[in-house]
Amino acid sequence: MYITSAFDSGNIEVINAESSPIQLAIRQDNNSDFYQWFHFRLEGEVGASYPLSIANAGKSAYPEGWENYRVCASYDRQNWFRIGANYDGKTLDFTVTLDEPSIYLAYFAPYSWERHLDLLAWAQSNERVKIQTLGKTLDQRDMTMLTIGDAETAKHRVWMIARQHPGETMAEWFVEGFLEALLDDANPQAQKLLADTVFYVVPNMNPDGSVRGHLRTNAAGANLNREWLNPTMDRSPEVFLVREKMLEIGGDIFLDIHGDEALPYNFVAACEGIPGYDERHAKLEETFKQAYEAISPDFQTEHGYELDKPGEANLTIGTAWAGHQFRTLALTLEMPFKDNDNLPDPAEGWSPARSQQLARDILFPIRETLKILK
Amino acid sequence: MYITSAFDSGNIEVINAESSPIQLAIRQDNNSDFYQWFHFRLEGEVGASYPLSIANAGKSAYPEGWENYRVCASYDRQNWFRIGANYDGKTLDFTVTLDEPSIYLAYFAPYSWERHLDLLAWAQSNERVKIQTLGKTLDQRDMTMLTIGDAETAKHRVWMIARQHPGETMAEWFVEGFLEALLDDANPQAQKLLADTVFYVVPNMNPDGSVRGHLRTNAAGANLNREWLNPTMDRSPEVFLVREKMLEIGGDIFLDIHGDEALPYNFVAACEGIPGYDERHAKLEETFKQAYEAISPDFQTEHGYELDKPGEANLTIGTAWAGHQFRTLALTLEMPFKDNDNLPDPAEGWSPARSQQLARDILFPIRETLKILK
Amino acid sequence: MYITSAFDSGNIEVINAESSPIQLAIRQDNNSDFYQWFHFRLEGEVGASYPLSIANAGKSAYPEGWENYRVCASYDRQNWFRIGANYDGKTLDFTVTLDEPSIYLAYFAPYSWERHLDLLAWAQSNERVKIQTLGKTLDQRDMTMLTIGDAETAKHRVWMIARQHPGETMAEWFVEGFLEALLDDANPQAQKLLADTVFYVVPNMNPDGSVRGHLRTNAAGANLNREWLNPTMDRSPEVFLVREKMLEIGGDIFLDIHGDEALPYNFVAACEGIPGYDERHAKLEETFKQAYEAISPDFQTEHGYELDKPGEANLTIGTAWAGHQFRTLALTLEMPFKDNDNLPDPAEGWSPARSQQLARDILFPIRETLKILK
Amino acid sequence: MYITSAFDSGNIEVINAESSPIQLAIRQDNNSDFYQWFHFRLEGEVGASYPLSIANAGKSAYPEGWENYRVCASYDRQNWFRIGANYDGKTLDFTVTLDEPSIYLAYFAPYSWERHLDLLAWAQSNERVKIQTLGKTLDQRDMTMLTIGDAETAKHRVWMIARQHPGETMAEWFVEGFLEALLDDANPQAQKLLADTVFYVVPNMNPDGSVRGHLRTNAAGANLNREWLNPTMDRSPEVFLVREKMLEIGGDIFLDIHGDEALPYNFVAACEGIPGYDERHAKLEETFKQAYEAISPDFQTEHGYELDKPGEANLTIGTAWAGHQFRTLALTLEMPFKDNDNLPDPAEGWSPARSQQLARDILFPIRETLKILK
Ligand SMILES: [Ca+2]
Ligand SMILES: [Ca+2]
Ligand SMILES: [Ca+2]
Ligand SMILES: [Ca+2]
Repeated sequence: MYITSAFDSGNIEVINAESSPIQLAIRQDNNSDFYQWFHFRLEGEVGASYPLSIANAGKSAYPEGWENYRVCASYDRQNWFRIGANYDGKTLDFTVTLDEPSIYLAYFAPYSWERHLDLLAWAQSNERVKIQTLGKTLDQRDMTMLTIGDAETAKHRVWMIARQHPGETMAEWFVEGFLEALLDDANPQAQKLLADTVFYVVPNMNPDGSVRGHLRTNAAGANLNREWLNPTMDRSPEVFLVREKMLEIGGDIFLDIHGDEALPYNFVAACEGIPGYDERHAKLEETFKQAYEAISPDFQTEHGYELDKPGEANLTIGTAWAGHQFRTLALTLEMPFKDNDNLPDPAEGWSPARSQQLARDILFPIRETLKILK
Repeated sequence: MYITSAFDSGNIEVINAESSPIQLAIRQDNNSDFYQWFHFRLEGEVGASYPLSIANAGKSAYPEGWENYRVCASYDRQNWFRIGANYDGKTLDFTVTLDEPSIYLAYFAPYSWERHLDLLAWAQSNERVKIQTLGKTLDQRDMTMLTIGDAETAKHRVWMIARQHPGETMAEWFVEGFLEALLDDANPQAQKLLADTVFYVVPNMNPDGSVRGHLRTNAAGANLNREWLNPTMDRSPEVFLVREKMLEIGGDIFLDIHGDEALPYNFVAACEGIPGYDERHAKLEETFKQAYEAISPDFQTEHGYELDKPGEANLTIGTAWAGHQFRTLALTLEMPFKDNDNLPDPAEGWSPARSQQLARDILFPIRETLKILK
Repeated sequence: MYITSAFDSGNIEVINAESSPIQLAIRQDNNSDFYQWFHFRLEGEVGASYPLSIANAGKSAYPEGWENYRVCASYDRQNWFRIGANYDGKTLDFTVTLDEPSIYLAYFAPYSWERHLDLLAWAQSNERVKIQTLGKTLDQRDMTMLTIGDAETAKHRVWMIARQHPGETMAEWFVEGFLEALLDDANPQAQKLLADTVFYVVPNMNPDGSVRGHLRTNAAGANLNREWLNPTMDRSPEVFLVREKMLEIGGDIFLDIHGDEALPYNFVAACEGIPGYDERHAKLEETFKQAYEAISPDFQTEHGYELDKPGEANLTIGTAWAGHQFRTLALTLEMPFKDNDNLPDPAEGWSPARSQQLARDILFPIRETLKILK
Repeated sequence: MYITSAFDSGNIEVINAESSPIQLAIRQDNNSDFYQWFHFRLEGEVGASYPLSIANAGKSAYPEGWENYRVCASYDRQNWFRIGANYDGKTLDFTVTLDEPSIYLAYFAPYSWERHLDLLAWAQSNERVKIQTLGKTLDQRDMTMLTIGDAETAKHRVWMIARQHPGETMAEWFVEGFLEALLDDANPQAQKLLADTVFYVVPNMNPDGSVRGHLRTNAAGANLNREWLNPTMDRSPEVFLVREKMLEIGGDIFLDIHGDEALPYNFVAACEGIPGYDERHAKLEETFKQAYEAISPDFQTEHGYELDKPGEANLTIGTAWAGHQFRTLALTLEMPFKDNDNLPDPAEGWSPARSQQLARDILFPIRETLKILK
C-alpha cells in the first residue's frame, strides 16, 4: 500500500500506514489554520480493501461538512464516483476496495492548473474572447481575466469570479460550463446576451492555493474573501489586481462562485447587510433568484445562509464589497460538496457535470435580471 | 462534373448537364404532386465554379420557401453551411465553387436512416428507455416508439412525434437533442420531469418518405398529417399504428415536430379551431408558449400561422385530432428551413445544432405546463 | 419478440417466430443461388433468452463456413462481439440473451453505404486525394475510385479494390484502415510510398450487393469476380468500369481484398496458374508474402487455397485477369469471417479493428515489393 | 506584451521586455550549468509581431542544437507547429505574429506531469498492466514502473525507460505511443510479444526535472545518465530505485529513450565500448537496427554518434551500464528536436505524433531481436 499526494492540488499526510484503519491527516493551508481539502492517490492490490481514517477531520474548518459526506474517487482521473464514509465527530472513516491498482481520492473532483490553462487556450480561439493577464500571484502564477463580448458597445457588464477558495473546485467546473454555453453559437441565450452585454470572467481567483492543495487561502495564508476592503500586492495580489480592474470598469452584476462544505443545496447569498442596500438591490436579487429557481431544479431559495442584519455586512467579503461599491446586484453562488438533497444522485453526488449544467442555466437569470436594468 | 442522388434521402434530376447554368429538377414525391426536398452530391474540379438552377422551383409545394432561402452545403457530411441563392419566382439559382472534389447540397441538413438507427441503439443503453416496434411501414421499415420513464407510476404522459413530413429533417435533429437532454443524468429538469412523467417518443413518423427523399408524403403518396381521422394500414400505417397506441395510452401533452418552408421563425400552432376548445386548452397553450418564449430567444409567438376559426379545425391533422380526442394540449412545433430572423446566423442559418438546442429548451415549457395539470 | 432486416445490408426471413428455436432463413442473393450473409435486428424482453435457428444454413454457399463459426452481435451498432453457435451440418443454432431491448446480429460487422459515403467525404479533405466517379451500378449507385498521390510523377501504380463480394464487409473495414494509414502525415511508410507511388483505390466494388444484403453478387445476380474477361455494362458495370480504368492506367501491383467463409486465417492467393506466370511474378509474390508475414503475426502463408496448376487459372477472376493482363503481381487477400486461429480473440474473433490493423501493416509488403520493381 | 513561464516545465527569463527584439534568457537547471529547454507563454495583440531573441543560446548545453532549429509553437496546447528561427552562433532569433491573443512556445511539444498521471491512470485499466511506485524523487514525486505482461511465465524481459533528460519530452510521447500499441487488442505484434515477454516501462525517469523545466538534470542538478555506476538516494534516487529493480529482475533488452539536440535523425547508440562486448552483443544490435530500419523510414543507421573504442565506454551511462551488467542488448534511442531530414515535415518538424508512430514501429525490431534469444 502506498499513498502519495505529490501532484497538483495534492493534500494528505500519512500518520500511520501500518495501523488499521490507516491513519491520515489533512495538511493545513500554508500559514493558516484552515484545512479540509484532500486529494491523494492510493496504490495497492487489486481486490484488497483499505480502511482509511482521516484523523483530524473533526478539527477541520467545517466539521459539519463531514456529516453525510461521501468521498470522491476515480480510477481514471476523469470519472468520479462516491464512496460512503462515516463521521463520528472526530474522524472520517471510509474503506476503499480496489478494482484497479491505484485510485485517486479527493474532497471533490479536482480541477488542475493544466486544465485551467487548457480552458484559457480553448476559450481564446473564439473571436469574441480577449485574454488579459492582470498580474502575478505570490507564487508567480498568472491572474487571468477573460473579456467576452464587445466592451465598447455593451450596455451591460457582468462579472464572474470563481474559486477564491481554492478547494472549492466545483467553482471552476462551473466556469467551464458557463464559458461553453456562452461561446456556443447555437445557444440563443448566449447570442442574445452578447448582443448588448460584456462578460468579465476570472476562472480562478486563487491559482497558488489551487496548486498547493489549499482549502481556503492563498500562498500567504490569506483568505481572499476577507481581503476586499484593503487588499495588498504583498498579501493578496489576487484580489488587489481584480479589484482594481473592477474599479476601472465597473459592472452591473457581480457573481462570485463558491462551494459550501455543509449545506446539501445550491443557493446564493446576497448583500442585504451592506450600507445602502435598497429596493433596487432587492428587486434585482429577487428577479435573479426567481428566474434561477424557475429554470433549474438544482437551484433553490429555501436553504441558505442566515441573512445579515441591515448594515452589518462584512465588507471585506467580495460580494458585499462589490454590491456596496457598485450599488448593484452582487451574489455569492454556493454549490454543495455533498449533493443536492432535493435531487440526490447516489452514484456521483454533486459533480462536475452538474456544476456545468447549473452554469449553463445561469444564462437565464442573468438575462432576466439585465432586462430590469434596461 | 457529375451529379448523383442515389443515396439515403437523395433527390434531384439532371435535366441538362451541358447548359449553363446546369438545369436541375426536383423529383415529385411518389404518387404525389408534392416536391421541395432535394439532396444530391456534385463532383467536379477543385476551384471551379458550377452555376446550378432548379428549374421547377416555382411550382414546388411552397414557392415562398425559396424567397431568401440559402442552400445547405457540406463537404464532409457533418458540417453544413449555407450558400446564397436567387429565386425569381420560377427558378432557384446558385453557384457552387468547389474547395474539395465533391460537395453535398440539400434543402436542409439530412438525417439518414442509419443515423436514426444509431439514435435508437444509443437511447436503449439508458435503463429508463424501452424500445417498441409498433409495426411496419409500406416499405417494411420499423415504426419505432421509445418509452422513457416509468409508465406505471407516472402521473403525466407526454407524446412527441416528429417528421410526419420527411423532408423536415430538423424535426429529427430536434428529437436527437431532446433525447440527449432527457437522458442526461446531470440535467435537473430531466430528472425532475422523469420523476412523475413518462414520455412516448416517435423520432421518425415517416421512414419511407425519409429514405425516398420525399418532401411530404409516405411511400404511397399519403400526406400523413391529413390522415389522423381515418388512417388505414394500406395507405397510412404510420399514423394508424401510432394513433392506436395513443388511443390505448392517452396523454396530457402532444407535440408534433415540423419544419416550415416559408416562415423564418420558430413557433407553435395549436388547435384553437377544434370543437370543444376551452379555457383549459387555452391556459395550457398560453403557459407553454410563455415559458418557451421566456427561456429561448429562438422561440417566439409573434409570427406564425393564421388562427383557425372556432370549430373549423381540420381534424385530419395530428395536432387537431389529438387535441380534440384527448381534450388537452396538442401543439405543432414549426422550425424554419431558412433561419430565425430574430437571431440570424449568416454562416449556417437554422441548423441541426440549433434544432437540438431548441429541443433541450423545451423541457422547461413542458415542465411549466405539467405543473398546471397537477 | 420482433425481428426485422429492413435496413442497409439487412437479410433474414422469419419462417416461424412461434417455434422454439425461432426458425430463420437467409434470403438468396437476387437472381442467384448464393446466400450466407445475414444481418437483422431482434427486439425482445431484457433478460429473456431467444433460441434461434438458421434453417437453411447447410445449403448456403459455403457450409464449411459455419463450422466453428460464432455470430457477430452488437447492441450499439459500434462494438461487435461474438455469440457461440452450433452447426450440425444443417442448421446454425445460437441463443441470444438480451442485455438491452434490441440487438443486431450479422455474419460480420456490417459496413453501411452511409459509412462508405462518410469515408469518401473524409478522404477527400486530404489534398493528396482525388475522387472520381467512374459510372453507375445497375441500381444507379456511384462506382467511385480514389486516386492518392501524384499520378503524373509517380514511378509506381498500386491498385486496391475491395468487396467484389459484398457480404465480405471486412474488406471495406480493411480499406478504411488502409486509407487512414496512407493519409497519416506521421506515418513514415506512407510518406515514403507517396513520394514515388500513386494508389488507385476502389473501396467498394459492389455497392448494390452491399446495400441489398447480398453475399456474393451484384443487383443482377452476377458474381463480379467471375466477370473480368468479358464484363458488360448490362450485367457487370462495376467490373466493366474499373477494368476500363485499369486498362487505361495500368499498374504494378493489384490487390483485391476479400473475406473467406471457411478458413480461419489471413492469406493471399496469387495467380500462379495464369499463362505467362514467370520468375518475376514469383519473386514479387514471394517478396510480398515474406514481408507481410514478417511484419504481421495476423498474416501467414501456411494455410490457404490450393494452387492452380500452370495455365489453369480462371481468367474471369480479377486477380488472375490483372496478373495476366499486366504481367505483374496480383493478389487476392483473404481475411477470415471466423478468427485467426494463430492468434484467437475469444471476445471478438476477427474484427473491424483487426482488419484495419492488417491494412496498416500492408504498407510494408507493398513497399518491399516496389523496391524490386525499381 | 506579457511573457510567463510559471507552469509545468516552464522556463524563460525576460531580460528586457522593452527592447526590440525582446531579450530572453533560458534558466539553468537547478544546481547545474546545463540549459537549453524553454517553455513559455506570450500574450499580446492579435495581429501584432513580436521579435524575440534568446540571448544566451550560444552558451547553452548544445549550441549546435540551434542550427536549423525551428521553434515549437501552439495556440491551443494540443497542436504544435514550427516557427522559423535564426541562429548566429550567439543568439536564437525568431518572430511571433499572433493569430490568437496568446501563444505557447517551447523547445519541443511539452509533456506535462498531469498528462503523465493520466497516462498511468489509462494504462492501469488494462488488466495486463501492474503499477508499482518504486520510491520517491527528491521533490517527493513518484518513481513509477509499469509491468506489462505475465512476469511469472514470461521467457523474455524487456525494459524501456524514458526521459532521463527531462527536456527530451519526445521520449515520453514515444512511451505513450508504445503503450498504446502494446495494449491494443487488435495489434497482433503486441499480442504475440505479450505471449512470452514481459515489459518493464518507466515512462518518466526524471519527474522533478520535467516539472521544473530542466533540460538535463534532476532537482539536485544530477545528470541521471551519468549516475548508473554509483547512484545514491541523496543525489540520484531516480536511478538508484530503477537500477535496484533492474538488478532484482534482470532483462534481455534495455531501451533508454532520448532526444538529441543536434542531429536531425532517429538513431540508436549501443554499448560497443563496454568491457566484454562480444559477438552476441553485436548480433543482437545488428538485428535490432536492421529490423527497425526495414520497418520505419524514420529510423536510420547512417547518422549517429561516434562509436566508443573497445573498453572505453562510460559505464556511468545507463545503456552502457545495463549492457555490461546484463551482458545483453542495451540501446539508447535518440529522436531529433529538429526533424528527420530524410523525411522532413515543413509544418511540424519532428513531432509528438511521429514519436508515437516510431514507438509503434519498435515492436517489430524488439520481436525480431527476441527471436534470436530463443
Ligand atoms: Ca467558499
Ligand atoms: Ca410540416
Ligand atoms: Ca470472396
Ligand atoms: Ca539525452
